[in-house]
Amino acid sequence: MNIALHQELSQLLGDRFTTSEHERNQHGKDESSLRPMPPDAVCFVLSTEEVSAIVKLCQKYRTPVIPFGAGSSLEGHIFAPQGGVSVDLSRMNKVLRVSAEDLDCTVQAGVTRQQLDKHLRPMGLFFPVDPGADATFGGMASTRASGTNAVHYGTMSENILMLTVVLPDGQVITTGTRARKSSAGYDLTHLFIGAEGTLGIITEVTLRIQGVPEAISAAVVGFGSFESAVQAVTQVRQIGVPIARIEFLDEVMVKAVNQFSGLTLTEQPTLFLEFHGSNASVKDNVEQVGEIMREFGGSDFKWAVNQAERTTLWTARHNAYYASLAYRPGCRALTTDVCVPISRLAECIADTKRDLAESFLTAPMVGHVGDGNFHLLLLVDPNSPQDHAEAERLNERLVERALSVGGTITGEHGVGMGKQKYMKAQHGAGALAVMRAIKQTIDPENLMNPGKMLPPL
Amino acid sequence: MNIALHQELSQLLGDRFTTSEHERNQHGKDESSLRPMPPDAVCFVLSTEEVSAIVKLCQKYRTPVIPFGAGSSLEGHIFAPQGGVSVDLSRMNKVLRVSAEDLDCTVQAGVTRQQLDKHLRPMGLFFPVDPGADATFGGMASTRASGTNAVHYGTMSENILMLTVVLPDGQVITTGTRARKSSAGYDLTHLFIGAEGTLGIITEVTLRIQGVPEAISAAVVGFGSFESAVQAVTQVRQIGVPIARIEFLDEVMVKAVNQFSGLTLTEQPTLFLEFHGSNASVKDNVEQVGEIMREFGGSDFKWAVNQAERTTLWTARHNAYYASLAYRPGCRALTTDVCVPISRLAECIADTKRDLAESFLTAPMVGHVGDGNFHLLLLVDPNSPQDHAEAERLNERLVERALSVGGTITGEHGVGMGKQKYMKAQHGAGALAVMRAIKQTIDPENLMNPGKMLPPL
Repeated sequence: MNIALHQELSQLLGDRFTTSEHERNQHGKDESSLRPMPPDAVCFVLSTEEVSAIVKLCQKYRTPVIPFGAGSSLEGHIFAPQGGVSVDLSRMNKVLRVSAEDLDCTVQAGVTRQQLDKHLRPMGLFFPVDPGADATFGGMASTRASGTNAVHYGTMSENILMLTVVLPDGQVITTGTRARKSSAGYDLTHLFIGAEGTLGIITEVTLRIQGVPEAISAAVVGFGSFESAVQAVTQVRQIGVPIARIEFLDEVMVKAVNQFSGLTLTEQPTLFLEFHGSNASVKDNVEQVGEIMREFGGSDFKWAVNQAERTTLWTARHNAYYASLAYRPGCRALTTDVCVPISRLAECIADTKRDLAESFLTAPMVGHVGDGNFHLLLLVDPNSPQDHAEAERLNERLVERALSVGGTITGEHGVGMGKQKYMKAQHGAGALAVMRAIKQTIDPENLMNPGKMLPPL
Repeated sequence: MNIALHQELSQLLGDRFTTSEHERNQHGKDESSLRPMPPDAVCFVLSTEEVSAIVKLCQKYRTPVIPFGAGSSLEGHIFAPQGGVSVDLSRMNKVLRVSAEDLDCTVQAGVTRQQLDKHLRPMGLFFPVDPGADATFGGMASTRASGTNAVHYGTMSENILMLTVVLPDGQVITTGTRARKSSAGYDLTHLFIGAEGTLGIITEVTLRIQGVPEAISAAVVGFGSFESAVQAVTQVRQIGVPIARIEFLDEVMVKAVNQFSGLTLTEQPTLFLEFHGSNASVKDNVEQVGEIMREFGGSDFKWAVNQAERTTLWTARHNAYYASLAYRPGCRALTTDVCVPISRLAECIADTKRDLAESFLTAPMVGHVGDGNFHLLLLVDPNSPQDHAEAERLNERLVERALSVGGTITGEHGVGMGKQKYMKAQHGAGALAVMRAIKQTIDPENLMNPGKMLPPL
């Protein structure tokens, strides 16, 4: 990298600026199966002002800037395909403010979801969005993340009130207000949510939070076929019974989870359910949902009654990614992520299962099926070009299938480097041109996380 | 207007193009107290293609284009301060598709909320966002409207999946997909929601819809003071009891509503409540909320048990605007709209009440208080400069108060012509500059609803 920039960053940050190979490698890989691409240098920042100063310097020297949180991306978001400086926000990890009265809080971008959870639980509060990994809020905001609770509480898109953002010229802005709703001006908050760091760097996030419900019940129910499981879910959604989580695991994933997390679930298509509410309403919801499950041939509910049992269950679910990796030792996972209208979910899964049956690859399946969102974890030998090619082929077929039924190429993982090639098919040339125009006007030098999201022209 | 443009539009639309004074006047006024500003011509469109053709012609002749739905704006959104062509979408009034399975539907922009409701109810479905007026979905999307159900179901921002938009160059794009969530690219859907027609014209909207709940109960509860009412609401929100509607009317508004809609409510600070859910959960929610209301000195619930009683109650609430106008015959209303963090709501209302007590103007107050959102209807003699000045002064104090506690200058009515002067105070120079950059890149000639939302430089 440019020597003058090196000197200026070093002066600004002292030993929080590094070009060590170890740190560069750490900041050039994620949890995808993509080949790592390390940055030229790493900056560990402590404040919005430091991020602003770094961005200004990188503009001065025309050097790419790549924000880094926990490195848990599944699409190469934190890679440095054009070199540049990785801005590691993980030390900006303060919970700045919690209001139980307004049910909101403000965190620095490097706070992780588990850290916030530990902070909020003793106050009888929680934040519902829970991607599998212990991601940072900067990363979760930037990829429009969701997770198991989204079916009831929404995704990051519905749970952010305000952002502090460092723009490509180093200027610091805030978007939104602490009011629950606003009709004042263009919705910059939603513009930066999901922008994957390509328009600026998010440094603070104001979140909606929730009171821990009076009653929480979790249960597991097995099905003879995935079709029955999906039909049951569709029915639950249609009649509108409130359900906080409704997660699907196929028989392969159940096996992987049993092995990895020491569960003893029957290896069949399975739903993990959770209900939140008052004692009376949870009881009522459980009855309504139980009736539907039985109607579609579901097994009796196996209850996770106390907190410890529930934690075991949901930790196992959150570790599905690691369980899948352990299922084929030494492998990496190409983790797909599509989301379709729920009426088309069963056929999408069926066609995908057919593809898998004809393939030599193994791929556990898991899904936030209440939203029509599901993942395959295509397990590949990192050294096998055949495996990679086959995983890519299966992924491509799945993405095209999702598009053909009116779905999206990614429900929650983002575009990053992996899915740029499908952006035009999803959005059309006109909408993609609007995206490019926005990028061009906000980041004219294309220095903010370049090579991500928008496909090359 | 330009003669060549006149000829081309006339050729394109036949008698659906007019420059009649009557139609121009109809399309130059709304429900605000602002002085009307008629366009030079009106086009009644039947299709997205026609909108596209008109926009192309207006670009060719550098003529402003102003979308028009129902004319129910409260901030002069449909005015023509720089002249130009009003594009009336009210004849694009087809419900194009309803999916009970996916709980979504697609409507043309000219469909009104009551029209959609009539369409959906027989199918056991409904759309929850309900601004007071019978607005069109194009207008509701463009102002990020909400209403009485937003506390539970969200605003237009949370209830739109896709948009069809005619861009300033006449190109037609769609934003979003029918999937419930997506992480693919910049969130253009939310960019056009609330953009007030300044970036293009929305011609179709795909909405999330809901199943009509098994049980619906509505009730009225009176309080000795507005503080108690607001405290009770705050408490309900904090413990997270699901409540579909929680509306506040001050004693003046109750009197106005009694007179206009023939109700016989006690003239005191009052909450209108509604509960949605299963029979068991509604019963449970009512008990929980009832306990809180009693704790804060609320009267016994007066129930609106059957559909007819509920309709009477909510029609009266939706007619609050007209009830207020009737309260001072011959008046117009300057309808303010702020939204604040709920912890600051009581003090905001108290300070506002104090202002009103010292003023010569009368102003009924009504609020979606579960969201921290409330309105004053400042009743002014349209011919009295003193009344206008005083209303403007009170409005300004209220807006500044909302900003000082972290709120927004408008919760649901939009900026239009009325609130541009507060945009910088709310967003700051940096964020406002980002908005200007987006406007400049998408509408470089500033022909899409010019003079709205963004303050003059």
